[in-house]
Amino acid sequence: MRIKKLLTFEADGYRRWGVLSADEQGVYSADALEEAFFTPLTETLSEFIRQGNDSLSALAYALEQNEKTQAVSPIPLNRIRIVSPLPENERNIFCIGKNYPDHIAEFERTAKADIPAHPVIFTKAAAAVIGTEDTIQAHASLTKELDYEGELAVIIGKTGADIPLAEAMDYVYGFTILNDVTARDLQRCHSQWFHGKSLDTFCPMGPYILLRDAAPDHFTIRTEVNGEIRQDASTSECIFSIPQLLHILSQGTTVHAGDVLATGTPAGVGIGFQPPKFLKAGDTVRITISSIGTLTNTVR
Amino acid sequence: MRIKKLLTFEADGYRRWGVLSADEQGVYSADALEEAFFTPLTETLSEFIRQGNDSLSALAYALEQNEKTQAVSPIPLNRIRIVSPLPENERNIFCIGKNYPDHIAEFERTAKADIPAHPVIFTKAAAAVIGTEDTIQAHASLTKELDYEGELAVIIGKTGADIPLAEAMDYVYGFTILNDVTARDLQRCHSQWFHGKSLDTFCPMGPYILLRDAAPDHFTIRTEVNGEIRQDASTSECIFSIPQLLHILSQGTTVHAGDVLATGTPAGVGIGFQPPKFLKAGDTVRITISSIGTLTNTVR
Repeated sequence: MRIKKLLTFEADGYRRWGVLSADEQGVYSADALEEAFFTPLTETLSEFIRQGNDSLSALAYALEQNEKTQAVSPIPLNRIRIVSPLPENERNIFCIGKNYPDHIAEFERTAKADIPAHPVIFTKAAAAVIGTEDTIQAHASLTKELDYEGELAVIIGKTGADIPLAEAMDYVYGFTILNDVTARDLQRCHSQWFHGKSLDTFCPMGPYILLRDAAPDHFTIRTEVNGEIRQDASTSECIFSIPQLLHILSQGTTVHAGDVLATGTPAGVGIGFQPPKFLKAGDTVRITISSIGTLTNTVR
Repeated sequence: MRIKKLLTFEADGYRRWGVLSADEQGVYSADALEEAFFTPLTETLSEFIRQGNDSLSALAYALEQNEKTQAVSPIPLNRIRIVSPLPENERNIFCIGKNYPDHIAEFERTAKADIPAHPVIFTKAAAAVIGTEDTIQAHASLTKELDYEGELAVIIGKTGADIPLAEAMDYVYGFTILNDVTARDLQRCHSQWFHGKSLDTFCPMGPYILLRDAAPDHFTIRTEVNGEIRQDASTSECIFSIPQLLHILSQGTTVHAGDVLATGTPAGVGIGFQPPKFLKAGDTVRITISSIGTLTNTVR
């Protein structure tokens, strides 16, 4: 039998994945094939896909054997509940676009920025995450406007949606430092910000998670490039507080333990200077947040 | 010792996580504490955080025991490499905003849409994924403009960056159907699209993954709401082909096996009608893509 359609489903109270039968009336469960033919298959379809062709060959082998022996019968579709093929929830990196009045002014190039009624919410790719001392790739063939954004990031410690303002801090597990590295030219030309903020290595994070109970009410954020202070602000200047951000972000949207929320950057990013001070290979960015530590990354 | 700062690090060739020592000169490795005090701890900090307070108590217990016995010594920071606290890469749902000329025309309300030079790239939260037959929540208190977008989605099967156009199809594992459910009013008021497209249940996906080798060159997409055909198009109309999208998306950005790329929606979404035809509780959306199947979801 040729492998054509894969699916994840629930049957007998637990979740499995498998192969749709040729007549599309049933599913060969991967765990049943594994047991019958001693073929190692993965627990989830997600993992299976990540393992690539070897796993596909193993599955094909099991199905071949099954054509001869008929050891495994397809489970009729009316006895299963099909769920999303890749149902695993994974970590998000939520970001807030404009949360410091002085930064809005420098970014919009207006004398007096309008205070937004709604926070700008976007994401960075989790795959872009690097640690302190890791190298920020300049991606010089893709961007001429590489910029830094020093930010306080919240680590969400509890899963929930529609979080009431008064309970929002219960959802905060701790804090870390995040550099929302941005290719300004890509940010512009793709109109949505994700791509220009998600190139590989564009999300330095760390070095530590400071537990909520060990944290001060407000933090100071200081960003230096090659020792020159560019950003120096307090999180007390934020338009939207952490409880407000969690409250708004979670309206209708489940946030998960392990998700990260970067709370916006203060004034002093490279594009805010006249002329702009973009990053270049060899530059070292150090972001220090009081009580947490320093996140250091050099551009190569 | 009070737990204050947690970190993920590499030492002796493998990745671990642990607790920063009180003098901040070293780290107590979680696996060493686990072994010494028979306290079950998780393999990753990410998992640890997801397990919440019970795990924290277990860690606190181990550190308390260690104060008495000194069985575990901190590893000096100069002997480790600190990495991001949550370094695991997770699945992304990349989306393309404007990829069918007729949809751009209906969305922009212009007679003749300009063909964009760059695709609009954004993401949906992986946590919003639901399967076929699952319920789309109306979120009536948050949105009055609930809309559907039937789309062909690519399942990426191979991890890579800077994918050459000619090799792009090697990165396609298969195809599924995705409904890019959107709260148009939230899409507008937050300016970036993520939030209005990531409310819980806003990413129906499935029912199957069709393997690449079993797929036709082009697909037809047909979306029905309560039996009324709203979208009916061919993927051959797309401005950017799948190889082009993978090529552009992966420039500077690693895409991972298991990532999903929704390729944009054709004309016929609710907001494109005069007056608009938004979804309401009780409506059933059925998206049929040739060779794959039908993704069916009812709004409640």
